[in-house]
Amino acid sequence: MRNEWKNNNPDQQIKPYKKEVDYSYTLGAFPTYELIKANPKVVRKVIVHSGYTDIENLEKLCNEKKVTIEQNDKLIAKISDKENCYVAGVFDKFSDDLRKDRPHIALVNPSNMGNLGTILRTAVGFGIYDMAIILPGADIFNPKTVRSSMGALFRINHHLYQSFDEYHKQFKDHEIFTFMLNGKKTLDIKDSPKANLYSLVFGNEATGLDDSFLKIGTSIFIPQSPDVDSLNLTIAVGIGAYTFTSRK
Amino acid sequence: MRNEWKNNNPDQQIKPYKKEVDYSYTLGAFPTYELIKANPKVVRKVIVHSGYTDIENLEKLCNEKKVTIEQNDKLIAKISDKENCYVAGVFDKFSDDLRKDRPHIALVNPSNMGNLGTILRTAVGFGIYDMAIILPGADIFNPKTVRSSMGALFRINHHLYQSFDEYHKQFKDHEIFTFMLNGKKTLDIKDSPKANLYSLVFGNEATGLDDSFLKIGTSIFIPQSPDVDSLNLTIAVGIGAYTFTSRK
Repeated sequence: MRNEWKNNNPDQQIKPYKKEVDYSYTLGAFPTYELIKANPKVVRKVIVHSGYTDIENLEKLCNEKKVTIEQNDKLIAKISDKENCYVAGVFDKFSDDLRKDRPHIALVNPSNMGNLGTILRTAVGFGIYDMAIILPGADIFNPKTVRSSMGALFRINHHLYQSFDEYHKQFKDHEIFTFMLNGKKTLDIKDSPKANLYSLVFGNEATGLDDSFLKIGTSIFIPQSPDVDSLNLTIAVGIGAYTFTSRK
Repeated sequence: MRNEWKNNNPDQQIKPYKKEVDYSYTLGAFPTYELIKANPKVVRKVIVHSGYTDIENLEKLCNEKKVTIEQNDKLIAKISDKENCYVAGVFDKFSDDLRKDRPHIALVNPSNMGNLGTILRTAVGFGIYDMAIILPGADIFNPKTVRSSMGALFRINHHLYQSFDEYHKQFKDHEIFTFMLNGKKTLDIKDSPKANLYSLVFGNEATGLDDSFLKIGTSIFIPQSPDVDSLNLTIAVGIGAYTFTSRK
């Protein structure tokens, strides 16, 4: 598939992003650099616009990592929706095996691509490098998700599951903590739960986790004012990840 | 001004949102309910679409709070950009005096409206009800900000300042904590700074706070992996607010 793409009139086959296809894009210099540095083996090619002023550093990195780079103004205009995009990367979609010996974050049906990207960035920021996503959920490869992850998508192991059960069965040694508005244990910064191997589980932006999750592991409530409906999902993940990773 | 607007062919004068005008909108039932409940005195009127199914509860609340409600399909289509908006509120822009006896968050040049709204929601979520915004900055009254605040805009006191100095001079008793990637003190969940009256200061999404802020108060670094450029601004505010408010 990859060879075919490379040989047969390749640029006609690169189109604006679609969920169904087996490749996606980084749009902009920062995520493209992150792609090349963190995961060069999935890069199909790097495209630069003739107006890009820092071509030398990018060429040097591409040579080091053995990544194809080409100047192609038409192609970059075709795949990007922003006028001022001067660098893009085309990469194969990928999937990883989550590590059995490290903590995880599990997102059940996340619906917003911007949030999903921010959560990837936040997880990596706090040193959690394994993420389970329970489908249906926002498209992790949509360029919007990639952009808001600030390249963290290429630093983290992620895997998509059809159900929470499918995920849970594979990682029975992980202690489960579900974050819920009706969680039984209130998160206490001075005395939060301790675990060496854990999975922090968060629900959908609008609906959270349903009550069946109260029976799985320890359910946790992040204390919050009655003046808000709930915390934003990305904030809840941030507080959870920060609290658990800071307690080691 | 308000009376004039009410009497002279008012609906022609209500237009899609502009930064320059002295009113704005809540789009959707949730933020409109929050507007009426938390800050009824700024409401010009509530508009419902004929297809809205829960009119009785809304009418009851409007009557209780002495707020005008009208059905007007054309007007709601005119001001909202989403087809499925059935409830909107028109409200006067407002400004508050920040309280001298409560903690603050100060945002220096926040640039993204979605982030600003999420930060308002997060602040209220953690019980911080006073927010200073140092201009230039994202428009706090843009319907996008209002929407992402989930109505928290109407629960919090906010005030816009032309400079950090202008803000700082008014609140000399507040201990200043600046959140910076080169902050001198690393935030420690087990031993974070303690203060009764404090202001947590955060910079712009792209550039953070410049080095002049190292000389103001205590600069703080939130520990994070070298695999990310930085944490997202909303996450940094969330961690800061959570840590400080949980330590009381």
